[in-house]
Amino acid sequence: MADLTQLMENDVFMAFATYAAIILLKMMFMSTATAFYRITRKVFANPEDCAGFGKGENAKKYLRTDDRVERVRRAHLNDLENIVPFLGIGLLYSLSGPDLSTAILHFRLFVGARIYHTIAYLTPLPQPNRGLGFFVGFGVTLSMAYSLLKNKLYL
Amino acid sequence: MADLTQLMENDVFMAFATYAAIILLKMMFMSTATAFYRITRKVFANPEDCAGFGKGENAKKYLRTDDRVERVRRAHLNDLENIVPFLGIGLLYSLSGPDLSTAILHFRLFVGARIYHTIAYLTPLPQPNRGLGFFVGFGVTLSMAYSLLKNKLYL
Amino acid sequence: MADLTQLMENDVFMAFATYAAIILLKMMFMSTATAFYRITRKVFANPEDCAGFGKGENAKKYLRTDDRVERVRRAHLNDLENIVPFLGIGLLYSLSGPDLSTAILHFRLFVGARIYHTIAYLTPLPQPNRGLGFFVGFGVTLSMAYSLLKNKLYL
Repeated sequence: MADLTQLMENDVFMAFATYAAIILLKMMFMSTATAFYRITRKVFANPEDCAGFGKGENAKKYLRTDDRVERVRRAHLNDLENIVPFLGIGLLYSLSGPDLSTAILHFRLFVGARIYHTIAYLTPLPQPNRGLGFFVGFGVTLSMAYSLLKNKLYL
Repeated sequence: MADLTQLMENDVFMAFATYAAIILLKMMFMSTATAFYRITRKVFANPEDCAGFGKGENAKKYLRTDDRVERVRRAHLNDLENIVPFLGIGLLYSLSGPDLSTAILHFRLFVGARIYHTIAYLTPLPQPNRGLGFFVGFGVTLSMAYSLLKNKLYL
Repeated sequence: MADLTQLMENDVFMAFATYAAIILLKMMFMSTATAFYRITRKVFANPEDCAGFGKGENAKKYLRTDDRVERVRRAHLNDLENIVPFLGIGLLYSLSGPDLSTAILHFRLFVGARIYHTIAYLTPLPQPNRGLGFFVGFGVTLSMAYSLLKNKLYL
């Protein structure tokens, strides 16, 4: 085993690893939420998924869309669109030697904002709750990108 | 060139790099599969894509959806939803100093399960083939996240 | 702070960090473009988003799809499908010790191609402009994966 375990002795990188794992686990939860609503509401996208409910035309009635399922899928896609930039920019930001407490503030705000966004989307809470969750997460990622590019620009 | 080539002398990291590249190439293949079905079936989402098939109203008939194309697109999105957590959690897990043979078992299972998921989705095979591929990949990512957070939690 | 700041003294890694941050910022711009078109065209996906425009049935007329909004969403999803492989494969490629000028050529071509793809998608420009942007980006990622796997395969 090489010396790269030193990466795991870096406090900022460790903190990033922890918060990144938490928010990815939250995103994976969206898959189970979609599956839960698809099964309890009998709403499927593929013929083979509802083959157990009947043959031929009888099964086709389950091939439909449902507001609840589409809502979870929109929340999941919004997660992907926001967590991918956080992972990429956050990893590079963590390696750029930021102040530990500043970095942890960024990570906590992002994770908190995205969890709030999910709660606001799935409940659903009235706006601007979901918008607030979105913009806080978005702003945190922008702030990390600014800090990264300001110090480390290489074109 | 700095000493970070030591990262590439770490066996777990090297194995992760190899399997991550393979599964990302598999995901990129989905783009070509979508393009293949769109062109052979003349099913397009944008007016400019079918401008070569006719003018005005004549071209509009190609702006439609198709079961086969939608199936590939769902498989592609499911890949994104599952490969992004694998990349993030797998990278951090690789750096956390796991046992080499345990780590390689995780990577092989994930890559195998996702390739099986794609085959089951595109053929399509009857359920629970696709579900099996999904849950094995999902379980592998959860297992890496558990291993990472158990040892390295930093909040 | 551990010695991993040496990662940030590696020129290839620094260049990757810079270009990755730029293309992720471009992708985040797609979220604001979607929000812009949704608000200016009053096209919403969730009932709570248009609650301010009226009550009950009056608000429901804003729950619709719109060509312009769907176009931005397709461009955003295409970004995700292509930038995720670039981030994963590009990170591993950067760590595999490639020649600096070759690496920078790859990163610049990818970022340029994806920006061109977005312009071609949103204008929209006639084909094959968008296709060209897509295939240049796709080819760059394949070239990095080939370079990575050729030298560093570990199965």
